[in-house]
Amino acid sequence: MVQPVLYSLFREGRVQQLLDLLKGLHPADLVETLHEFSPEEQERFFLLIPNEQSAIILQEMDLPEAAAVLARLPLGTVAEILKEMYSDEAVDILAELPKENAAKLLMLMKEAGEELKELLAYEEDTSGGLMATEFVAIPENMTVGGTLAYLRKVAPSAENAYYIYVVTRDKKLVGVISLRELVVTPLETRVGQIMHRKVVKVPEDLDQEEVARLFEKYGLLVLPVVDKEDRLVGIITVDDVITVAKEEATEDIHKAGSVTPLRTSYKSAGVLTLYSKRVGWLLALILVNLISSGVIAAFEETLSVALTLAFFIPLLIGTGGNTGCQSATLMVRALVTGDIKLTSWFRTFGKELLVGMLLGLTLGTAGWFLGAFRGGALIGVIIGLTMLAIVVTANLVGVILPFILTRLRLDPAVASSPLITTIMDAIGLLTYFTIARMFLAL
Amino acid sequence: MVQPVLYSLFREGRVQQLLDLLKGLHPADLVETLHEFSPEEQERFFLLIPNEQSAIILQEMDLPEAAAVLARLPLGTVAEILKEMYSDEAVDILAELPKENAAKLLMLMKEAGEELKELLAYEEDTSGGLMATEFVAIPENMTVGGTLAYLRKVAPSAENAYYIYVVTRDKKLVGVISLRELVVTPLETRVGQIMHRKVVKVPEDLDQEEVARLFEKYGLLVLPVVDKEDRLVGIITVDDVITVAKEEATEDIHKAGSVTPLRTSYKSAGVLTLYSKRVGWLLALILVNLISSGVIAAFEETLSVALTLAFFIPLLIGTGGNTGCQSATLMVRALVTGDIKLTSWFRTFGKELLVGMLLGLTLGTAGWFLGAFRGGALIGVIIGLTMLAIVVTANLVGVILPFILTRLRLDPAVASSPLITTIMDAIGLLTYFTIARMFLAL
Repeated sequence: MVQPVLYSLFREGRVQQLLDLLKGLHPADLVETLHEFSPEEQERFFLLIPNEQSAIILQEMDLPEAAAVLARLPLGTVAEILKEMYSDEAVDILAELPKENAAKLLMLMKEAGEELKELLAYEEDTSGGLMATEFVAIPENMTVGGTLAYLRKVAPSAENAYYIYVVTRDKKLVGVISLRELVVTPLETRVGQIMHRKVVKVPEDLDQEEVARLFEKYGLLVLPVVDKEDRLVGIITVDDVITVAKEEATEDIHKAGSVTPLRTSYKSAGVLTLYSKRVGWLLALILVNLISSGVIAAFEETLSVALTLAFFIPLLIGTGGNTGCQSATLMVRALVTGDIKLTSWFRTFGKELLVGMLLGLTLGTAGWFLGAFRGGALIGVIIGLTMLAIVVTANLVGVILPFILTRLRLDPAVASSPLITTIMDAIGLLTYFTIARMFLAL
Repeated sequence: MVQPVLYSLFREGRVQQLLDLLKGLHPADLVETLHEFSPEEQERFFLLIPNEQSAIILQEMDLPEAAAVLARLPLGTVAEILKEMYSDEAVDILAELPKENAAKLLMLMKEAGEELKELLAYEEDTSGGLMATEFVAIPENMTVGGTLAYLRKVAPSAENAYYIYVVTRDKKLVGVISLRELVVTPLETRVGQIMHRKVVKVPEDLDQEEVARLFEKYGLLVLPVVDKEDRLVGIITVDDVITVAKEEATEDIHKAGSVTPLRTSYKSAGVLTLYSKRVGWLLALILVNLISSGVIAAFEETLSVALTLAFFIPLLIGTGGNTGCQSATLMVRALVTGDIKLTSWFRTFGKELLVGMLLGLTLGTAGWFLGAFRGGALIGVIIGLTMLAIVVTANLVGVILPFILTRLRLDPAVASSPLITTIMDAIGLLTYFTIARMFLAL
């Protein structure tokens, strides 16, 4: 709707009307409109509007996109825009820019730059990397009325106003009070009397997945970050955590498909990046595949006598792979989300043994029919029994491997579908030929 | 730390001290402690503490767990506890209880029951199913001071106090103002003058995945829900959305492993549920597997002449499956998150064609070496070429299938790792034997 109007106002240079229109538009919607602009037009657009507005809009963009826009603007303007941003967003964008530009910008930003430099030192995927330094902190002996007056003066923005942190003279975090509580408390009350002294807080180096888990567990909107001396150094807000949750899910899904996490969107990943994130796994899996080839070679004689056996290879090892893939998928996700714990290993094993037997009986029966139909009664028995054995084994491998990996403090997601499938090829073939040789008395 | 103290206070029936201890404990932590209690102890515990406290604790539990606790308590108590809960939580728990109990409870709850009955009518995974009816709504001509006084009177709880909705006499939503803005505005100002008239809102029947996307896009804490006449009927809060995001990711991951989504945690899923969510897929995949068997049977002669060919079957079809699995994983996730769109199909296809060729050349070279090493120069050429062809094809199948499924308005996640692997088995075998027959002049 808005887009054609906005575009024509922009083209005709009617700045005041354009700015009025922007006021009524959510920056997230504006970003979608800006996608239709050429890079040159985007450049002109951001030079036209106030830096404060640019900051708001750029904060809504994907990081590589925002970085691309800023790369076209003069460094002085970029520095002013970055100053207007939340520190956590500014840091993320700085990390996307070429190193020498980032260094120059930090210089240009003076004091604000010093603060950002400190934030830049944190690992990206930790609490320190997620936090912003814009928070409201007050001393314990302030009254509710005084606090409200203080808020009126500093007029904090949405991201940091809902919780007010209470700190000692040397900035140690001692309590928290919500804006809601302030509003419903008599004005002369001292904050120290009503604040919560048990504050859920995190150290600077906590992994972001753990941060997301705390947000979910405690239903938080904001989480304060403290340094080793328990001094308040920043806050993490829930909107960052939603993004983290999505990124982590994408990573887990990629790992399940044996793709090394891209660390960027698919759209912005180049051909060589994609190649490099995949080729290692494929080559490694070939090595596992060689075991399967070895098994077939070892049973060459059996196979040459009863070539019918070859017909059922894809059926048997395929079903084994699929079964293992299912149980590994269930296990890895349950372990990652904390749905099951390492300690419940024995119970889970028992459960999956039962599920595996039920699946094995069903698929074994199907295999028996198919085998008998194609190769006669004896082949039917061989295929049926092999199917049963493979399915039960595959199910257990799918359960056990993620548990072992977790136990060894490795990522259970390494038990990806391709890995399980490839392992089950080898185990399946060995099972198959062993059973076949027994029954065919070879 | 706390647990042994809490437990002994409880065992010794020192109620007052127990209640004091509970005050300093976050309910989410208390839930973990309660896991160690026997069901009988849990029952006694919840009968001991005030219903309001029970409500807070039960809201922190997993749904099946909370339902299990409530099932042991007298219906009268349960009704009182449910009245103390947020309506969205109460509804979710009611949906877990046996139908006849739920009906009785709604009767016992009288007015509150009527309200819950309306909420129960919404589909669970829509905006209506997520929303709570506890929100603060005021008329346009109220002053800021009046609003703050009103808030002091109704003392809303955390979940619904951060945004105040402005409605007309017939409850139509016309604006919104944040508590933060109220606090920093002169008291005599009328709310109508400062409220935001553009409110991001959703209809009652929006899919929860879409709701989560809006929260992420606009960085929301709360999202109002309106009926067809634009009347405010409820609000969705960000904490529900974090849970939704996690559930949806779990579903997507399960689908990628060919497991029909469980709709419950793995821990609380029984053996038969797990069996039923998996057996359908496994049987369906057997049908696809039969094509592979058919291909081998068709090339029986070729195979009997050159049995060496059999050695490489797992290697070739395995690598094909793994490659297809990788590209399908990347595609499905990118489509689900909106990272790539249907319209960019052509560009994505081109990109993956290039990636596939690079991978094909790498793996083809590896295959050539392995083949030559094991079966001589000619076999080396056959394996190398087949590997190249299979890898390129698999990569494209992995890209195309999710796109076609999305185009047909089906869930792209159907292109699971097991399905892709199984399809690639058949295509791989056909490619292999065709190339082999050509080179061996059979």
